[in-house]
Amino acid sequence: MNIADVYTLLRPQVAEIEQEIQSNLTSRIRRVQEVGEYIFQSGGKRLRPLLVMLTSKLFAGDEQRAVRIGGVVEYIHTATLLHDDVIDEASLRRGRHSANYHFGNETVILVGDYLYSKAFQVLVADGDPRVQKTLSDVTTLMSEGEVFQLVKSFDFSVSLEDYFDIIEHKTAILIAACARCGGYTNADIDEDHAKTLWDFGYNIGMAFQLIDDILDYMGDTSRLGKSVGTDLKEGKMTIPVIKLRDMATEAEKSRIKSLIEQQQIPAEDDLAFVIKLMQRYDIRTHSLEVAHSFLHKARESIDRLPASEYRDALHVVADYVIDRQL
Amino acid sequence: MNIADVYTLLRPQVAEIEQEIQSNLTSRIRRVQEVGEYIFQSGGKRLRPLLVMLTSKLFAGDEQRAVRIGGVVEYIHTATLLHDDVIDEASLRRGRHSANYHFGNETVILVGDYLYSKAFQVLVADGDPRVQKTLSDVTTLMSEGEVFQLVKSFDFSVSLEDYFDIIEHKTAILIAACARCGGYTNADIDEDHAKTLWDFGYNIGMAFQLIDDILDYMGDTSRLGKSVGTDLKEGKMTIPVIKLRDMATEAEKSRIKSLIEQQQIPAEDDLAFVIKLMQRYDIRTHSLEVAHSFLHKARESIDRLPASEYRDALHVVADYVIDRQL
Repeated sequence: MNIADVYTLLRPQVAEIEQEIQSNLTSRIRRVQEVGEYIFQSGGKRLRPLLVMLTSKLFAGDEQRAVRIGGVVEYIHTATLLHDDVIDEASLRRGRHSANYHFGNETVILVGDYLYSKAFQVLVADGDPRVQKTLSDVTTLMSEGEVFQLVKSFDFSVSLEDYFDIIEHKTAILIAACARCGGYTNADIDEDHAKTLWDFGYNIGMAFQLIDDILDYMGDTSRLGKSVGTDLKEGKMTIPVIKLRDMATEAEKSRIKSLIEQQQIPAEDDLAFVIKLMQRYDIRTHSLEVAHSFLHKARESIDRLPASEYRDALHVVADYVIDRQL
Repeated sequence: MNIADVYTLLRPQVAEIEQEIQSNLTSRIRRVQEVGEYIFQSGGKRLRPLLVMLTSKLFAGDEQRAVRIGGVVEYIHTATLLHDDVIDEASLRRGRHSANYHFGNETVILVGDYLYSKAFQVLVADGDPRVQKTLSDVTTLMSEGEVFQLVKSFDFSVSLEDYFDIIEHKTAILIAACARCGGYTNADIDEDHAKTLWDFGYNIGMAFQLIDDILDYMGDTSRLGKSVGTDLKEGKMTIPVIKLRDMATEAEKSRIKSLIEQQQIPAEDDLAFVIKLMQRYDIRTHSLEVAHSFLHKARESIDRLPASEYRDALHVVADYVIDRQL
């Protein structure tokens, strides 16, 4: 089974989630709908809803609820992307102009708020306090974590621990919540299983963000849908730079430090210098090792759950997280 | 009874709400807490929580729940203020530097998200689906309405109907929700009463925003806590300008039109020109009439509810909405 097979396995459900996403976009204000359509038509892999559906299927959950919650998590994810793009002044997202470039920051902030509210509206209608608690806890932690990331921007001395804290809150806990909430679509799932699903999601989430951060230096723009070196520009200390910092000579370190701290767009040759150093120290391999260690934990979690084609599919998703663009 | 007496009547409850607001600000991320404290220490009248408490008392509701929901509505209100200030690039709020001026737009967007999420977290813990539905519906409508306001900015031809639509969504429905949710702290309140509370809140909310919009041209900066003429600068067509447009000569109209449409800060003498015209046409009186008509409806609603000192207090709040700074 590969990732395409997983999407094939769940084709009707994925189509239903897509319809759920579209139908909740209907707004009496045309501009809101336009922005919504612009964002959601730009694609995205719908990885989070897919995870909800897979863990729901694994525990024979209520499919309609999984569709609904799938839509909710994609809304929450998209709301965070919209606000991030405003914050990062991003002009590219998924290979085309970001919504803020197109519609202006003001509208995009508000449509982000709209998607958050819509998400909670649907959760209220769904009526499961476990899902409501999981997702309201996670969104609270996510916004706190984003502030922490801002606080740590342009700070060359960020510890690996702080970095893990940042990516945990930025990415891993929402994916963890997806895996757990899929389980909750079975009203009788026991909390041990729910916890195992969370752990699985958490660990693939960590691996996912690590890979993202590696690709930011080592991917290519056309496949990435955004520019290489964005994190350097934004003064974000991610796994490749942290690894590089810990291996480089004092002279090299001092130049990288000034690039991180300068709060402006690095020159072409500065970026080239960093990327060349990363090649010299084989930062790709060192960073990938970290991602693999999280993935290993994810696989251990999932193997404690009952065997089925859906469990196999979760393994495929785990592999895909690492292999997607490397 | 005057507004001070109302605050005295509910002194212990208002203190508890204040403590609720503070205690939920505790965040593992120091910056989040700092921003939170900065905003909530800048005061504000806590009108929305007060309303929740009054309507709760009127129906002998659960006081602890009213405290909790009071905190929630203040969080939602503050989140919208934070995002509005970023959007309007405001530098003053409640008489001092706005949070975005102080901490930067990025942090403020995220702390707004944090407050929204916290609000829903508390609502999930509170567990009343009627309150959850009311407030998630309202926040969704509010963000849509804000987009509509943006769409209609710099548009001199805005109808009175569109203006009412804007202030309804921007202000009235949250205040309506406060009044209704206070009622819901009594588990057995019937829906007719809940509807009456909504109508009361809605109408004082409409009056409240009308007064705000009148004060924007006719208040004084020191008591207002923000500059006079902000709405003109932002190209917002509010009641005084709409009334003026409908009474002015063609020549006057054409100058006002260009001021609204120019998308830049009006010169001192342009603002003086508009304010002088407003005096000449007695726009204050014409605009106040509209506010009074909403207030009249509010009073009619509240008189359908059982008499008590809390009902008297609601009348005082209604009066206060109009009299506060005129």
